[in-house]
Amino acid sequence: MLHVNENYARIKPTYLFAEIAHRVAAHQKANPDAKIIRLGIGDVTEPLAPSVIAAMHRAVDEEAGRENFHGYGPEQGYAFLREKIAAVDYAARGADIKADEIFVSDGAKCDCGNIQELFGPDVAVAVGDPVYPVYVDTNVMAGRGDIRLLPCNAANGFVPGPDGCTADIVYLCYPNNPTGAVATKEQLQAWVDWANERKALILFDSAYEAFIRTPGIPHSIFECTGARTCAIEFRSFSKTAGFTGVRCGYTVVPEEVAAYAADGSRVSLKPMWMRRQTTKFNGASYITQRGAEAVYSPEGQSETKATVDFYLENARLVREALAARGYTVAGGVDSPYVWVDVKGDSWAFFDKLLKESNIVTTPGAGFGKAGEGYIRISAFNSRENVLEAIDRL
Amino acid sequence: MLHVNENYARIKPTYLFAEIAHRVAAHQKANPDAKIIRLGIGDVTEPLAPSVIAAMHRAVDEEAGRENFHGYGPEQGYAFLREKIAAVDYAARGADIKADEIFVSDGAKCDCGNIQELFGPDVAVAVGDPVYPVYVDTNVMAGRGDIRLLPCNAANGFVPGPDGCTADIVYLCYPNNPTGAVATKEQLQAWVDWANERKALILFDSAYEAFIRTPGIPHSIFECTGARTCAIEFRSFSKTAGFTGVRCGYTVVPEEVAAYAADGSRVSLKPMWMRRQTTKFNGASYITQRGAEAVYSPEGQSETKATVDFYLENARLVREALAARGYTVAGGVDSPYVWVDVKGDSWAFFDKLLKESNIVTTPGAGFGKAGEGYIRISAFNSRENVLEAIDRL
Repeated sequence: MLHVNENYARIKPTYLFAEIAHRVAAHQKANPDAKIIRLGIGDVTEPLAPSVIAAMHRAVDEEAGRENFHGYGPEQGYAFLREKIAAVDYAARGADIKADEIFVSDGAKCDCGNIQELFGPDVAVAVGDPVYPVYVDTNVMAGRGDIRLLPCNAANGFVPGPDGCTADIVYLCYPNNPTGAVATKEQLQAWVDWANERKALILFDSAYEAFIRTPGIPHSIFECTGARTCAIEFRSFSKTAGFTGVRCGYTVVPEEVAAYAADGSRVSLKPMWMRRQTTKFNGASYITQRGAEAVYSPEGQSETKATVDFYLENARLVREALAARGYTVAGGVDSPYVWVDVKGDSWAFFDKLLKESNIVTTPGAGFGKAGEGYIRISAFNSRENVLEAIDRL
Repeated sequence: MLHVNENYARIKPTYLFAEIAHRVAAHQKANPDAKIIRLGIGDVTEPLAPSVIAAMHRAVDEEAGRENFHGYGPEQGYAFLREKIAAVDYAARGADIKADEIFVSDGAKCDCGNIQELFGPDVAVAVGDPVYPVYVDTNVMAGRGDIRLLPCNAANGFVPGPDGCTADIVYLCYPNNPTGAVATKEQLQAWVDWANERKALILFDSAYEAFIRTPGIPHSIFECTGARTCAIEFRSFSKTAGFTGVRCGYTVVPEEVAAYAADGSRVSLKPMWMRRQTTKFNGASYITQRGAEAVYSPEGQSETKATVDFYLENARLVREALAARGYTVAGGVDSPYVWVDVKGDSWAFFDKLLKESNIVTTPGAGFGKAGEGYIRISAFNSRENVLEAIDRL
């Protein structure tokens, strides 16, 4: 008789955004004429940059002939992409990351979810509360029970520090999903020092780094001193370049980063991640990787920056409109997410906004206990829809 | 202190095909002028079908405008693709599979590797020997120690039966990788009856089903009576339509298939796989899914069939040439792989062929103990290269 993985019974049966999608679909079915405005899941709405489109057309044409056909790609992703990532995303910011420490994937969600496979079953995991559900769910699914919550609230500016934290792993996400908070270099350096001191590991999710405009705010954990010995970083082209539908991200695993065997010996994580990826993954689409490469061209950089600027202006409009209506808001600066204090049950507020105003948001409670009382509003939509949503609010 | 997953120390540090790639690269470096012919990893060489190329260009253009832009797709994959899979790959063969039992992914290797997450740590796993390494490695990485080998040899025609097998899960792959063997309907039905009898599960990998030309050989486990209660099936567009570089596969999880909790209660696997995929995956590229849809058009069907026929003719040439030289060969009919008895150490034979003839194959020992004494030759190459390889042999 085949035994099931009973840990699945310990998580909610439906992933948060799947639950929201089902509620929205039911509302649309009951109200077929309702013009629903989606400021929920955080999916992009603007088209891909022209330079990305041109690069993908060229790549499709290569697949049409024997001469330039590309089958299985190199295990870590194509060097043409990894070298540009290393130069533009790291070297140019003073972060020392080599192209062969970069692992290209089909998205940061997969990597954030899979990374925990490298660790023992008994490790203590710290996450912010509220939190992107993937960090918690994937650990629970793997049988880990020691999940420690770091409250993120108005009192700490939604950026908890390491004081008193005794976990083995901490997931940090800045600019934060869902609160939109950013961490200063000093705040991140405190976590790096903590991790090196304790032989702990930082899993740093910087999927939203492209939204940072305030000078001095780090885009990467590797801008901190000593991070190469204690951090892994996840990046995504989803929000940076509108790749939610074409799928590309990458993970940085420095040579020096390690975990420890029961006998105390150091085990390097980079070859383990390589083994995990070569065994359970076969690379991102060649066409997608050529598209991602184009993001690093001068045209690609200015085109994608313009799109991010457009979303940031949406965020500013939402934030200021809500503030003018008397709401306490956080985020929405250096971030596409506005975090709104609704002073009440967040699923009730979600349902009310959906039913009365045909606006989809994300209830804070879906991100954890400390998210209760808030909703997340995403700036990913057309200007017209954002302005109409503001009117309806 | 962060504890490592110590199970990784129980597998070889390098994935088989990564090891081969490194040996080939070293040989090429030492002999820069050598014209190496690759009949190893089984990567396709023929371009994508014209109808697939046209569909992907159209999809790229959709991503260029706000009107038809596609971001995050539906969790299980687009209905336009799943409905065609259900109709062409299943209903047309008399197999009852609904579109909502199909989960589109970025490749069968990922799904074959991830599926074991749904099962308990103590389950007994049966695999053929020789075997596609992913089935074994992914279970060992997850801490499972009870791996049982089903010898596949000339005596059983490389198709072991269920007699005496007391495992909870069996991985079956037909047409087989690496031996090229196919299973008859009676042979598969015996496994289905065994699994239903024992409340066990069949994980059926039919990545190579497009190569079946012999009438009566099943393309799907779901052609057998009772398979809906005991089988999950993995399919790939990699070999069927040359998608190794653009990445698409799918997994079929029927409503009825289940595992069991410690208290003996039945737990349906379909919602668990949905939860796994929505938590750790974000869908295959929209462009790739439009390309896969085009495989099911009348033009796509005839174009991809012609390419598979071309590889099958390569396989026939290799098989007959080796037989004429006195080798005992299996496979190469209904399969792109020819399994050659080299009557000696397979890594030594691999190295000899590489060094003396500049031909890359795959040593049978890389697939398990019972693979020792054999090499696998892949038919994925140009006719010119296949003929030259035959000359060099």
